[in-house]
Amino acid sequence: MIASAEFLSRLADRLGEEHVLTAPADIAPHLVEWRGLFRGSAIAVVRPADTGEVAFVVAACAEAGIAIVAQGGNTGLVGGGVPQGGIVLSLCRLSRIRAIDRLSASITVEAGALLAEVQAAADVEEMLFPLSLPSEGSCTIGGNLATNAGGTGVLAYGNTRDLVLGLEVVLADGRVWNGLSALRKDNAGYDLKHLFVGSEGTLGIITAAVLKLYPKPSSRAVGFAGLSSPHAALTLFDKLKRTVGRDLTAFEFIPRFGLDIVLKHRPGFLRPLTGDHAAYALVEMSTTRAGPEALGGLEKALAASIEDGLVEDAVIGLSETQNANLWALRENLSDVQSLEGGSIKHDVSVPLSRLADFLDTAIAACEAEMPGLRVCAFGHFGDGNIHFNLSQPLGMEKAAFLKHWARFNRIVHDIVHDMGGSIAAEHGIGLIKRDELGLYGDPVGLDLMRRFKLALDPHDLLNPGKIVAMSANPPPALPPE
Amino acid sequence: MIASAEFLSRLADRLGEEHVLTAPADIAPHLVEWRGLFRGSAIAVVRPADTGEVAFVVAACAEAGIAIVAQGGNTGLVGGGVPQGGIVLSLCRLSRIRAIDRLSASITVEAGALLAEVQAAADVEEMLFPLSLPSEGSCTIGGNLATNAGGTGVLAYGNTRDLVLGLEVVLADGRVWNGLSALRKDNAGYDLKHLFVGSEGTLGIITAAVLKLYPKPSSRAVGFAGLSSPHAALTLFDKLKRTVGRDLTAFEFIPRFGLDIVLKHRPGFLRPLTGDHAAYALVEMSTTRAGPEALGGLEKALAASIEDGLVEDAVIGLSETQNANLWALRENLSDVQSLEGGSIKHDVSVPLSRLADFLDTAIAACEAEMPGLRVCAFGHFGDGNIHFNLSQPLGMEKAAFLKHWARFNRIVHDIVHDMGGSIAAEHGIGLIKRDELGLYGDPVGLDLMRRFKLALDPHDLLNPGKIVAMSANPPPALPPE
Repeated sequence: MIASAEFLSRLADRLGEEHVLTAPADIAPHLVEWRGLFRGSAIAVVRPADTGEVAFVVAACAEAGIAIVAQGGNTGLVGGGVPQGGIVLSLCRLSRIRAIDRLSASITVEAGALLAEVQAAADVEEMLFPLSLPSEGSCTIGGNLATNAGGTGVLAYGNTRDLVLGLEVVLADGRVWNGLSALRKDNAGYDLKHLFVGSEGTLGIITAAVLKLYPKPSSRAVGFAGLSSPHAALTLFDKLKRTVGRDLTAFEFIPRFGLDIVLKHRPGFLRPLTGDHAAYALVEMSTTRAGPEALGGLEKALAASIEDGLVEDAVIGLSETQNANLWALRENLSDVQSLEGGSIKHDVSVPLSRLADFLDTAIAACEAEMPGLRVCAFGHFGDGNIHFNLSQPLGMEKAAFLKHWARFNRIVHDIVHDMGGSIAAEHGIGLIKRDELGLYGDPVGLDLMRRFKLALDPHDLLNPGKIVAMSANPPPALPPE
Repeated sequence: MIASAEFLSRLADRLGEEHVLTAPADIAPHLVEWRGLFRGSAIAVVRPADTGEVAFVVAACAEAGIAIVAQGGNTGLVGGGVPQGGIVLSLCRLSRIRAIDRLSASITVEAGALLAEVQAAADVEEMLFPLSLPSEGSCTIGGNLATNAGGTGVLAYGNTRDLVLGLEVVLADGRVWNGLSALRKDNAGYDLKHLFVGSEGTLGIITAAVLKLYPKPSSRAVGFAGLSSPHAALTLFDKLKRTVGRDLTAFEFIPRFGLDIVLKHRPGFLRPLTGDHAAYALVEMSTTRAGPEALGGLEKALAASIEDGLVEDAVIGLSETQNANLWALRENLSDVQSLEGGSIKHDVSVPLSRLADFLDTAIAACEAEMPGLRVCAFGHFGDGNIHFNLSQPLGMEKAAFLKHWARFNRIVHDIVHDMGGSIAAEHGIGLIKRDELGLYGDPVGLDLMRRFKLALDPHDLLNPGKIVAMSANPPPALPPE
């Protein structure tokens, strides 16, 4: 590896020895995602200090023909940040909040800033940065942008891409595109930013962004409703959209099995409703309006829905503590699932009007395929996005269950595709769904993706093998270990 | 023109003679925009009936090397729809509302549907399609998408691109990309739609779209405030954003000169406030919430602002008739301006926090440049978007005044650029600002635009010469006649 030794010493000359890591122990944490599904390899982890150094590193890689995988907090779920050779370019030192502009309702941040730091900086100005994820304490805004992260704020505020006003991007040849605009309206030529957002580091490396802020809501109400079915949940959602309107900031779905395992594994948690129900909705309303009437809409709508039989039972949090306790039921769902053995996961979306049908159809199909299978389908109902997870039958061997991963993928993704849905709603494609995308994607759309990749990264050095495979013999995108 | 005769008869064989117009009288209306600033030329106006016929026409043009300018209602303002040879491809016959899905809050429309027809179809379902423009009765949704149209709904609902869920696009080689997704969340690869939205027909021809709908607000309040300055308007805007919150659906700016000429040329209109003020804000709040309290926030906020001296005077419409009358003051501003002689126009935006400074600086600079000049700077203040128009001095020759177009462009655009603004906020680049974009655009960003154009339209047949000039000798982008 003489060539790579020379290359690395060139990087170390500019960045400092301590920021070009080559010791196996230093590299190891960057070769796996936290779920441990893939194991990659890299010759070094490189940590530039600023945009200029990122550009230098990328230009050096372009010259030497060395692949680059950009990493933030490495909290991805689809193998998108796992290197398969080349270097890992860590954005962790680009962590400044460059500017915050209250009147323009915008914040300029570097890619390595933690999501929680961006939220906190906004909060100081009595503003809200509404992106919110379980990993917000360790994921970076650069990673959120690269994957167009979703989370619980999407219903009212949109996906990450909807929160972007401008970007700064280092291109594959090391040039810097300065698109750090804070404008709400700009039709000066093609929109360049949206192609980079969600491209998982395959088209360019986002080094900074101007993001939208919102007035911070002064109060919220949280409700928890017991329902007879997904169809009842859909009707309730439609009703709340029409009455609570733009103040409806969350509508999350929890199946009976989901609530049962949260209460089983979190013994301190209180059962929110006395009886059992087939399905539950966690709903939130928030507002900047003041006065006792401001939050009345949610309670009124839930009461009326009990009255007319749509909702079987419901509670409203009477304090911020109770609100947080209701949210905790939803937030703990992912974690407790792993305590129930192996889980085959799908992150899918369908048009809202198909969502209840999707749940009915896909649950029936999976249960028919494997007796005893426990479907844990939950998530961002209001966005049409369900984490359609399958917990193994009780008593089955975990490894034996996980061997069925590909088979269940096919069953679930076929149903999703037939309903005009997406096999990758908020977690992205990465490595784990690359070949699924090839299977389900519109052929002309896939060709467009390849053309954009060729136009921006002709030598396939930016996160090669992710999203679209460009080479004739791409690195394998195997099912997880 | 033997070659073109053969080509046209091939089109006529498929589309029917009556949809391949070649008579000068039939073509003439498609060669100019309604402002009459540019005059183009075309060998024919071609009117396909559906996406398949559009694909056929585009493939035939690709084979014959003939340029295509797509047109909808031809209501553009920047020369983007003016042909310079080749054919005009009119989308007017693709005018169906294909589907409307109330639960998914989406509507699927063809490019040639009038904006007003899309609004009306949504209204039937008690839903709102919030895009709203003066030309909504004659502009098409395809044109709105191609130009990422703005208008008065942007503050609460975003630009046209923010209302798009999916697109169907005919590519330069005649293939059809079916991206008609109705999903709220979809991270299955690169976002393709945003590159086509706002590309003014230079990257592909949008034939259909899935658009977002919103619950229809059940009531609105409209206020009209007299203010001492643009700075006071900015403070009021910030205050309303924080109190009225997401229900603030418009904040439009009218200068004293603007109100004066509306009242002068529209004698039936009533003066909304008894005194004169340096600046006015038209503000609107709307909501789906029911009850007498629902709209109280706007009145309370305006009353408090008079109390603390921020607002000099204000009224609230007491009926829908009064609300409409207040809006008419703003809506008539563009038209009455033409009754005051020649007008040199700019459609610019700056970050919100710079907007008042921009107005002060640019007004002073223009007034200093030409004594007697009457600045009419008005528009979508809440979006940071001002129509910075200059009415000629009284008594000056109109033609003599318009000769100063380029000089004032330079003054105004230099100030905009220095403040991080855009020289093309909502009307686009087209022909009229193509060379200005070359002057002010980020060089790397301009190179990216050229690369996308090359990747999607390698032979430069889709609306050539607009936005970015690809050939060494582009057709002239002259100042308007």
